[in-house]
Amino acid sequence: MENILSVFWLVPVASVVALGMALFFFLQMKKEDEGTPRMREIAEHVRKGAMAYLKQQYKVVTIVFIVLAVIFAVMAYGFHMQNPWVPFAFLTGGLFSGLAGFFGMKTATYASARTANAARKSLDGGLRVAFRSGAVMGLTVVGLGLLDIALWYLILNAAGVDSLITITTTMLTFGMGASTQALFARVGGGIYTKAADVGADIVGKVEADIPEDDPRNPATIADNVGDNVGDVAGMGADLYESYCGSILSTAALGATAFVGTGVMQIKSVIAPMIIAAVGIFLSLFGIFLVRTKEGATMKQLLHSLGVGTNVSAALIAVATFAILYLLGIENWVGISFSVVTGLLAGVIIGQATEYYTSHSYKPTQKISEASKTGAATVIIKGVGTGMISTMVPVVTISVAILLSYLCANGFQLDVTAANLSKGLYGVGIAAVGMLSTLGITLATDAYGPIADNAGGNAEMSELGEEVRKRTDALDALGNTTAATGKGFAIGSAALTALALLASYIEEIKEAVARLAEAGNAHMQEIITKISDIPSFMDYFQVNLMNPKVIVGVFIGAMAAFLFSGITMGAVGRAAEDMVKEVRRQFREIKGILEGTGTPDYKRCVEISTRSAQREMIFPSLLAIIIPIIVGVVLGVAGVLGLLVGGLAAGFTLAIFMSNAGGAWDNAKKMVEEGNFGGKGSECHKATIVGDTVGDPFKDTSGPSLNILIKLMSMVSIVMAGLTVAFV
Amino acid sequence: MENILSVFWLVPVASVVALGMALFFFLQMKKEDEGTPRMREIAEHVRKGAMAYLKQQYKVVTIVFIVLAVIFAVMAYGFHMQNPWVPFAFLTGGLFSGLAGFFGMKTATYASARTANAARKSLDGGLRVAFRSGAVMGLTVVGLGLLDIALWYLILNAAGVDSLITITTTMLTFGMGASTQALFARVGGGIYTKAADVGADIVGKVEADIPEDDPRNPATIADNVGDNVGDVAGMGADLYESYCGSILSTAALGATAFVGTGVMQIKSVIAPMIIAAVGIFLSLFGIFLVRTKEGATMKQLLHSLGVGTNVSAALIAVATFAILYLLGIENWVGISFSVVTGLLAGVIIGQATEYYTSHSYKPTQKISEASKTGAATVIIKGVGTGMISTMVPVVTISVAILLSYLCANGFQLDVTAANLSKGLYGVGIAAVGMLSTLGITLATDAYGPIADNAGGNAEMSELGEEVRKRTDALDALGNTTAATGKGFAIGSAALTALALLASYIEEIKEAVARLAEAGNAHMQEIITKISDIPSFMDYFQVNLMNPKVIVGVFIGAMAAFLFSGITMGAVGRAAEDMVKEVRRQFREIKGILEGTGTPDYKRCVEISTRSAQREMIFPSLLAIIIPIIVGVVLGVAGVLGLLVGGLAAGFTLAIFMSNAGGAWDNAKKMVEEGNFGGKGSECHKATIVGDTVGDPFKDTSGPSLNILIKLMSMVSIVMAGLTVAFV
Repeated sequence: MENILSVFWLVPVASVVALGMALFFFLQMKKEDEGTPRMREIAEHVRKGAMAYLKQQYKVVTIVFIVLAVIFAVMAYGFHMQNPWVPFAFLTGGLFSGLAGFFGMKTATYASARTANAARKSLDGGLRVAFRSGAVMGLTVVGLGLLDIALWYLILNAAGVDSLITITTTMLTFGMGASTQALFARVGGGIYTKAADVGADIVGKVEADIPEDDPRNPATIADNVGDNVGDVAGMGADLYESYCGSILSTAALGATAFVGTGVMQIKSVIAPMIIAAVGIFLSLFGIFLVRTKEGATMKQLLHSLGVGTNVSAALIAVATFAILYLLGIENWVGISFSVVTGLLAGVIIGQATEYYTSHSYKPTQKISEASKTGAATVIIKGVGTGMISTMVPVVTISVAILLSYLCANGFQLDVTAANLSKGLYGVGIAAVGMLSTLGITLATDAYGPIADNAGGNAEMSELGEEVRKRTDALDALGNTTAATGKGFAIGSAALTALALLASYIEEIKEAVARLAEAGNAHMQEIITKISDIPSFMDYFQVNLMNPKVIVGVFIGAMAAFLFSGITMGAVGRAAEDMVKEVRRQFREIKGILEGTGTPDYKRCVEISTRSAQREMIFPSLLAIIIPIIVGVVLGVAGVLGLLVGGLAAGFTLAIFMSNAGGAWDNAKKMVEEGNFGGKGSECHKATIVGDTVGDPFKDTSGPSLNILIKLMSMVSIVMAGLTVAFV
Repeated sequence: MENILSVFWLVPVASVVALGMALFFFLQMKKEDEGTPRMREIAEHVRKGAMAYLKQQYKVVTIVFIVLAVIFAVMAYGFHMQNPWVPFAFLTGGLFSGLAGFFGMKTATYASARTANAARKSLDGGLRVAFRSGAVMGLTVVGLGLLDIALWYLILNAAGVDSLITITTTMLTFGMGASTQALFARVGGGIYTKAADVGADIVGKVEADIPEDDPRNPATIADNVGDNVGDVAGMGADLYESYCGSILSTAALGATAFVGTGVMQIKSVIAPMIIAAVGIFLSLFGIFLVRTKEGATMKQLLHSLGVGTNVSAALIAVATFAILYLLGIENWVGISFSVVTGLLAGVIIGQATEYYTSHSYKPTQKISEASKTGAATVIIKGVGTGMISTMVPVVTISVAILLSYLCANGFQLDVTAANLSKGLYGVGIAAVGMLSTLGITLATDAYGPIADNAGGNAEMSELGEEVRKRTDALDALGNTTAATGKGFAIGSAALTALALLASYIEEIKEAVARLAEAGNAHMQEIITKISDIPSFMDYFQVNLMNPKVIVGVFIGAMAAFLFSGITMGAVGRAAEDMVKEVRRQFREIKGILEGTGTPDYKRCVEISTRSAQREMIFPSLLAIIIPIIVGVVLGVAGVLGLLVGGLAAGFTLAIFMSNAGGAWDNAKKMVEEGNFGGKGSECHKATIVGDTVGDPFKDTSGPSLNILIKLMSMVSIVMAGLTVAFV
């Protein structure tokens, strides 16, 4: 234990502070009034539906986790293919991620009616409740993430595991638990919410001509439940995974980059954790900066939110210099500049996303205008815009990769053994910097769905136009401030995935060493040949002319498309079921549309739940199985090809889908604001088709891809022992 | 000259035979009656429009060619960055490709009215005219391609260039000319045809409720012109490029793989040319097998076409064994099996394409059924299906790559210097095998648009329902038999691109040697360090952990999306202009819809021409500029990353787009055949939205991607000298 620097204690302390503050904000929010009986009743419906779904999902996921843990146990205890801690680390990763989703959703479902009620009085009141509830989610995610990291680091040290490389690669397994949970949450939640949303829109908005969230629409409760299970619980698990993944992969790189440097190695391993811990305090500072004056205007609120997120992001850049200097990390200036590079890249990506998806700018305005020539041109323009929008993020992330690598590697782009790890350490720590203030960026992100739900509650409780307008304004506010947070999330995913490639190579070496130690003669022979990166690449023929590598890249690119195709198909099928049910209810239950009959909300909730459960399993398992098969058939070279191909194509595809979806959404909003004929016009109908198509693009397939990329890396890492056995 | 084996003369002879037979079929077709005065008049309109467009396009392309040729000349004569033959080879490639498109289109525009007229009498009469006209196109493409290859081979030998590696890499430059021409043809033609098609459909079919090709629609002539410039001239240039590319890259690989083996090296270089020459005779045999009995049924015609294509494909497999045995190529059995692997892969990819896009199968039926819940679900399902449909082709091509590599390399998957080239020689020759019977497969492909145009002519000439039904049947017939041909085209593109990677490495070595010889000290130092593949990879750090490689892969993936996005956007913009014009005419020209007023067809033709000219330049130049920038900034490692990333993502994206488009097209046809309410129903309208979105997917962006991939490789090869100068 003595080798852990005393400063490490900042990590568990920060995590406990985060969780404590989350509890504080939660209790504060609970004290607010939930409004009229009708509002309570609706909130209760949504809460129950959401919790029922989450329980159902966790049941399925638990089975998957048990099966996988048993497999890992057999690999570890039976065949020396893994170390004995792996099954347990894997399970805690899944458990903590599940908890983050659970708490976040619980908060969100309690907050929606309270936000609506506060918005009855004033805009800033609504913001306060929604934003603080979002902060619960943000702080829970970072608190639980850092707690899990701190615990495992302490446990493995206490257990006397003395190789930091072994410690950090073991901890990566808990990243796989988090990724697995996140993928199920994103896919299941994404299918749920979009089945309900698409179904509700098609029959409600297009066919029956009733507004969104109208209580006469049988799918409306399911739609609101969906916002919670998809946008809140799904996003929570997603960012939990990103947060832990970036810290863990950077720690693992630190262990490799500074191997044999004694205390410097320890420092480099804990540095990302310390940055994350400091980020928690800065996030809290930012959250308290978001002050709302009584009767504040939209502009003031926007400014206030902007100040909160930007100040904490700027401060983390400064803090990184201080942290790395105080830790005495070698080349602390360069590595700090890597973090600055990452933060800037995140800001640029966020701004580009904003440019391509907001109707304040030309691209989305053009999509909206295309509605004059019908739905087909709206789709063509949207697809075109989404594809073009990949350029800035990809170029930005490319420059960020090169620069953060260069900065951390003393401005050399050499790929020799030591340099590579050092450069990639810079890439990883840039991702950590982007996610370190997740406490507040997630708050601005999570409060959007809360405001959206509040709007739903207001509509169904028939609170009147004014309240709905306020909640819509809150929602819009969230979308604008969330841009930077989204940029950080997207950019860090790519950087983390890159760092994980290096971890894969380390884990292959670890696996060879483990098997060699267990007496495997072949491995004993190999081990001397793969000691550094160039010889590793040479031995496994990981060069771009090896057909195995090229085939790996092909399969990686295809995996991204296949996965998206399956999730798109799932939403399509589920939405069709929903449409048929809503049509049936309109037909069979008398007086629904006149407001005298009561729709059967429960039936629609059941359909979404059932569809999501049924459809989430296959694509999620696919993400786990593909890297295993490629590993066994094509070996190390094939897996590295797979991961690079999946990363590049998946990242690009994800941006395309997310931005196209976002642009369609806002193109529709632009028409609804009275342009091109406004609500109810032919143009409006055309943009609704775009928005409906965009729903699974931006909320199911797109965001799942970021997790897919990392999960494939994690699976490869954990399964390295199996791959090596076939070498 | 004496070192050219006498058997080589088969190559020019076969090309002359092909061109002679093309002329023969052309004259035969011209003898047919062009029908009523009205039919002649319409055909004349379309012919003039098409030729006017082609002239306009060739003007623009000529400027681009002159600029590029000057740049190459400066590189070659001023800086020793290229060899002196390059500018000329580049120009002939462009010229011959342009000629292939020109002759093909000329034939097609003469054939449409004649086909319609023959179809007035009988189905088999129509087939005979259309198929023989398609054969003109097929034979012209292979004849001109092989002629250019043979001429350059003879010239370079006669000029005393004694290194076969230099000869073959120089000849690749003419591949770049062909690729550049092809990209312009595909993009320009694709934008032209889809602007007209989408515009005509949106206003005609959806808004005014008049049938396709109705003479009252002002865009109908432009639409028919578009079929010729896009589907005929575009496809001709495209396949000319594929055909030459596969032969040239394989020849280049042969020169490397068998370097230092004397006559064996020559044999391996001419082997792909001999296979192609024999393929011409087998294609002719196949074309004559397609015999139509007077009054034959659809089934008999289908059988007849199938026999023609399948017999020639099967015979080329057998012939390859014989050719390679007689040439005495080392490991002739293995290499022949590589060809068999390629042919089988093509058949599987063709069948899979058929499965995912024909409404005889579930996927497309489901898309059609989704129309019951509106246009949005049609789009969602189509996107999902298209994405899922990438799996079989990617896995098939992956297996084909590995197997053809294995077979040609004595069943070893080693990537050492000699093995690599030998294995890749197998991959390249598999592509040659797939394209060697292009004479007939292109005939079955090209006759589709001819039949389609015949249908247009029949409709506009008001020949009655029966004739139109027959031309539709011919079109459908073409689509079914074209499956195998499409599979060959798609599969061979991927294999050729892979072979070009190896050529890139060779050309880098050539460039280093050239500069070293010219006295560059740095190059003299490098040259000893890159003599074989592993040391080359080592020196340039072309491994998957090098950030430059990874960034290259990212940019390659992004380039595919960006390119597609720009072409989609172009079609969107052009179609909007067209829609506005058609609406204007309906509004302002009295009596159009009643059939008493004459629409202003010319104005629509002008809009399409102008849009296509304006919009084709930027994306095409992008394809040329990206690899140059990446080469200068990221060096050899970055370029190889770019090419692999572009290949994998571009191939997958192309399949997604083509198949989604094809499936939407047939989902619409399924409704038109009377399902889900039939023509004019809400379901029909929903599927028309799908079909309209699918138009640029399958006819503009999708097919252009295959050329993009290869053009980026070709540019990298030709620009290798520039990249090396920055090493």
